[in-house]
Amino acid sequence: MNGKLYGVGLGPGDPDLITLKAHRILQSVPVIAWPAPDTGPSFARAIAAPHLPGGQLEIPIVMPMRTERFPARDVYDKASMEISAHLDAGRDVAVLCEGDPFFYGSFMYVFERLASRYPTEVVPGVSSMMAAASAAGRPLAARNDVLSVIPGPMDDEAMAARLELCDAVAIIKVGRHFGRIRALIDRLDLMDQAVYAERVSLEAERLMPLADVADVTAPYFSMILIYKGGEEWIHALPGSKA
Amino acid sequence: MNGKLYGVGLGPGDPDLITLKAHRILQSVPVIAWPAPDTGPSFARAIAAPHLPGGQLEIPIVMPMRTERFPARDVYDKASMEISAHLDAGRDVAVLCEGDPFFYGSFMYVFERLASRYPTEVVPGVSSMMAAASAAGRPLAARNDVLSVIPGPMDDEAMAARLELCDAVAIIKVGRHFGRIRALIDRLDLMDQAVYAERVSLEAERLMPLADVADVTAPYFSMILIYKGGEEWIHALPGSKA
Repeated sequence: MNGKLYGVGLGPGDPDLITLKAHRILQSVPVIAWPAPDTGPSFARAIAAPHLPGGQLEIPIVMPMRTERFPARDVYDKASMEISAHLDAGRDVAVLCEGDPFFYGSFMYVFERLASRYPTEVVPGVSSMMAAASAAGRPLAARNDVLSVIPGPMDDEAMAARLELCDAVAIIKVGRHFGRIRALIDRLDLMDQAVYAERVSLEAERLMPLADVADVTAPYFSMILIYKGGEEWIHALPGSKA
Repeated sequence: MNGKLYGVGLGPGDPDLITLKAHRILQSVPVIAWPAPDTGPSFARAIAAPHLPGGQLEIPIVMPMRTERFPARDVYDKASMEISAHLDAGRDVAVLCEGDPFFYGSFMYVFERLASRYPTEVVPGVSSMMAAASAAGRPLAARNDVLSVIPGPMDDEAMAARLELCDAVAIIKVGRHFGRIRALIDRLDLMDQAVYAERVSLEAERLMPLADVADVTAPYFSMILIYKGGEEWIHALPGSKA
């Protein structure tokens, strides 16, 4: 009998924010696979670490920093072949995912290669977007608000059009686009309603009004939350001048 | 010393999808408060039930079905006063929240009344939107997609303008607007990319291509997910004719 494939959402970073279900799977599967950059540690592996019993087989899915194609097909082809060998041998495999597996996650590339051939279960997780709003102490969205999630690489004109048509925004994948996006938010007169969040729920968490951020770039795992008409909520923020 | 106020996200419904942190809080607090309709059980209380040790004090926050004003200020004033009496007496209080507390949740109404006066922590949870995508076996959003969350009560013209400017959509609070929204999605030629999800992660879960739903109304806890260009993903759905 084939093994089962799990895509396991591990939440935003604090190991305490994984679900009971994810915890049980991590405790029981004989094989785990996890995404990693070609240099440095795997964030997903780090979130899972305190929950692993030890002794499991591990499959790193190493993504080269610079790839011409996105996603890097060869990497997922190879990882999926390794994973399928274990599934064929009857071993369950958990693919570790930061946040939620299907919210801008890379698990879809494994899923699309294997889910039609093996029993598969996706375990949702707490997304860093929700965790950022919780940490900031203000709603992500409420009542009949329209919330839009906008990736940072989008150009100014397109982003401005989308910012116009919603009440609340999470700009994700900010990274090297930080300076440009901040200038756009300033120009659109939304600065007073914008919060910057970085490495939410981790020791190194940074959370402050966007207006107070002195940096010119930001790490990949950073985001900007805007809650239009939410000026009153920003006062509660740590580091706020209000 | 004052007690601590927790807003605890409990996830989409399956008690296994609460976080370790939420679980620990439920096991330890002497007082819980939870929203409930004026008839019928509290969904949040039901998710928490298997995790409660028993013996805790309970504060129902009963929301009248029909209120002229939204939110019903008196209800939250009264509940917050009850909660603050416990906090003043040094007892921690956990307010139970379906899904995530700050993702269209009612916890904000307690938070805005009490967070400035008491130590407060918001514990994020898995949202039903993420759980629906996981159950449907297709991404909510990926790569540089724009994802919009649109509440069902929005009128057709406004909703169409927002549907136009995103790659992926979650229409929430569908309820009695179901028929109208389905007709709009059909007119915009998005029917083949739309999934209907109801009571996700519970026994009574219903999940199917929107085109296959025969009903004319839907429960409040239902949503429609649209992933533009995602026709290939719909084939994996249980109940799909593909």
